[in-house]
Amino acid sequence: MARIVMKFGGTSVADIARIRVVAQHVKREVDAGHEVAVVVSAMSGKTNELVAWTRDASPMHDAREYDAVVASGEQVTAGLLAIALQHIGIDARSWAGWQIPIRTDGAHGAARITDIDGSELVRRFGIGQVAVIAGFQGIGPDNRIATLGRGGSDTSAVAIAAAVKADRCDIYTDVDGVYTTDPRIEPKARRLNRVSFEEMLELASLGAKVLQVRSVELAMVHKVRTFVRSSFEDPNAPGMGDFDNPPGTLICDEDEIVEQQVVTGIAYARDEAQISLRRVSDRPGVAAGIFMPLAEANINVDMIVQNISEDGSRTDMTFTVPAGDLDKVRVVLEQIQKDIGIDTVQSESGMAKISVVGMGMRSHAGVAAAAFKALADRGINIRAITTSEIKISILIDAAYTELAVRTLHSVYGLDKQ
Amino acid sequence: MARIVMKFGGTSVADIARIRVVAQHVKREVDAGHEVAVVVSAMSGKTNELVAWTRDASPMHDAREYDAVVASGEQVTAGLLAIALQHIGIDARSWAGWQIPIRTDGAHGAARITDIDGSELVRRFGIGQVAVIAGFQGIGPDNRIATLGRGGSDTSAVAIAAAVKADRCDIYTDVDGVYTTDPRIEPKARRLNRVSFEEMLELASLGAKVLQVRSVELAMVHKVRTFVRSSFEDPNAPGMGDFDNPPGTLICDEDEIVEQQVVTGIAYARDEAQISLRRVSDRPGVAAGIFMPLAEANINVDMIVQNISEDGSRTDMTFTVPAGDLDKVRVVLEQIQKDIGIDTVQSESGMAKISVVGMGMRSHAGVAAAAFKALADRGINIRAITTSEIKISILIDAAYTELAVRTLHSVYGLDKQ
Repeated sequence: MARIVMKFGGTSVADIARIRVVAQHVKREVDAGHEVAVVVSAMSGKTNELVAWTRDASPMHDAREYDAVVASGEQVTAGLLAIALQHIGIDARSWAGWQIPIRTDGAHGAARITDIDGSELVRRFGIGQVAVIAGFQGIGPDNRIATLGRGGSDTSAVAIAAAVKADRCDIYTDVDGVYTTDPRIEPKARRLNRVSFEEMLELASLGAKVLQVRSVELAMVHKVRTFVRSSFEDPNAPGMGDFDNPPGTLICDEDEIVEQQVVTGIAYARDEAQISLRRVSDRPGVAAGIFMPLAEANINVDMIVQNISEDGSRTDMTFTVPAGDLDKVRVVLEQIQKDIGIDTVQSESGMAKISVVGMGMRSHAGVAAAAFKALADRGINIRAITTSEIKISILIDAAYTELAVRTLHSVYGLDKQ
Repeated sequence: MARIVMKFGGTSVADIARIRVVAQHVKREVDAGHEVAVVVSAMSGKTNELVAWTRDASPMHDAREYDAVVASGEQVTAGLLAIALQHIGIDARSWAGWQIPIRTDGAHGAARITDIDGSELVRRFGIGQVAVIAGFQGIGPDNRIATLGRGGSDTSAVAIAAAVKADRCDIYTDVDGVYTTDPRIEPKARRLNRVSFEEMLELASLGAKVLQVRSVELAMVHKVRTFVRSSFEDPNAPGMGDFDNPPGTLICDEDEIVEQQVVTGIAYARDEAQISLRRVSDRPGVAAGIFMPLAEANINVDMIVQNISEDGSRTDMTFTVPAGDLDKVRVVLEQIQKDIGIDTVQSESGMAKISVVGMGMRSHAGVAAAAFKALADRGINIRAITTSEIKISILIDAAYTELAVRTLHSVYGLDKQ
């Protein structure tokens, strides 16, 4: 017997028929003798509808009222799933965030969970009751509903799993796991059986949008074993109830991964824009003088590359942003160009970032070199490079995205079983 | 300066454009210096959608989960209206039932309000804040959301008005008041300036569906002056902000009605079915033996007529039910016919009930006789008659509904100013 938190996203609970399938997934685990808490998102499309209404009512709306409106979507799903579970003979009840309570800070619209009192949930596990919990929400210090920001139900699920000391947190979604790369680009992409928290963080933030980055961070901190699996498979297909090895990808501590791959996956992000600042005064505080104003304008700067200047007085600096933010960046840079001492600003959109991720990289030399050579062999020009302990990111023309992904996927042997 | 509770129903908050109009109605009262609490229903159609989902999930659903799902509609409207009010510079915040709290009994799906703590609302009136309250809901003894049953937002509004000792409760709806009869049938129908609680109870329960019966009962008990008025008029039209005499109908204690009319209004209910039980054993307990099983089958019996039997052993009994319930009634009667001793069951649908209502009836003789004569003059056959202190109800063939309504409206001089 184990304790499991199961999380189902918007497409998994899109209508009553899908909610019935979810109930069957839950029944399978209950019938196997497990203690189960379920975390649900709003039915797909509902959150967008509610958000659009708040914007329509006022573009500058009160985040506390936004939360009161938008949190209702998950409450509806939780009630409906509880009903569907009862209908097939399973003792279940729904919980809104304020009823548990899931306490958050006061940052309405993007709140962080500060504390979860799991005692009542655990008591009810003892009498065989399934808890169906509205995701994406808690209650703030002001006694009002606070939401965790988009995709926050993943975070709810992991936080609840930590609070009730669950053996595992199963994230059911519309894909059946985490792949070595996007199967739409490389049909030979393989599902990973296991991936470390650190690798998943890099893969998630780099465009393999299976899990919210924050939920992976939280899982890493609390060492919550998190399983990504599909809600669209037959709930009673062979192996689905196999506790030790169900179909999907386990995100876990690297200690649990016996044979580490040098490279685990190839991620990509299209629609990047590159900005190059030429002959910038090379003195302390310059980088802060550039990137602080960009942060204040809510521009999410991604790669940053700065070379050592030849003569110690002037340097070149390159960074990337989502292409949609390019106009905003230009406005900010115009305002600071003179004060900072930037000679020329060049920018170009239509870029893509390809990232090679793997824990094994730390102990293997030549991983980066292999990438550069493979891309060069294909005639793909490298615009910029950044590296971290377990990741190499390369900026290229977006036209070469698919070719680059397939090339790197093959170079590191990810095509092979 | 006064304290006002304003209630807006589903058609009044059907979309963001309508919610903006509601905000203007609220602004008018705030600008006039009044303290304001607003009670809102779900956007029209939303409650039906949510109810349909719970039914689809399971026909025999848990009423507590039904409440968790269905109460979300009002929470959405409350948040949206708070945003729309803030947008036009009015300090406002939304309140869910559990936040105030509005305490109810445990009858989920049809709960009764047991207590409202109005202290925080009153404190915030003092700092000029408008309270926007989700109608139709409270929190039960089990710490879960409990709804008051369909149309319960009227009841919420009146109960809150009583709790905060409001000077008036304004019910904004899609009609501009209570009329002497249905203007679609009798164009000469006039809007009543004032109507007593008792008269309104009879008019509401008889088909003039402006207000929930329960809310009128509550208003009568707590002597809450209740105003029925339109949310579809221009919020800033002349007279709309006239505190003492705005356009609409005031429902109040009869003491406030200086010149009482003999007859206040003519109500009607179509789609009635008549059931006559012939030669029923005339002994104690027979009526209970018939009407208890019907009540248990959730059949809403309306008129009941029983004559004194000729010989003291057998009697005839007639009652009416909504025509849609007739089949259910037949099933119940078949089961009890032998035990009770009913010789024959006759039934007929296609009936209508016409009711003449007025406080002045108590002190005026001949009101009933005038009705009977007027209907006879038109050749309308009377099937059954029941009377109360302030009401005469007459059952006729539904084909004569309009003619009977117009005839009675004219007989009692309601056509005239």
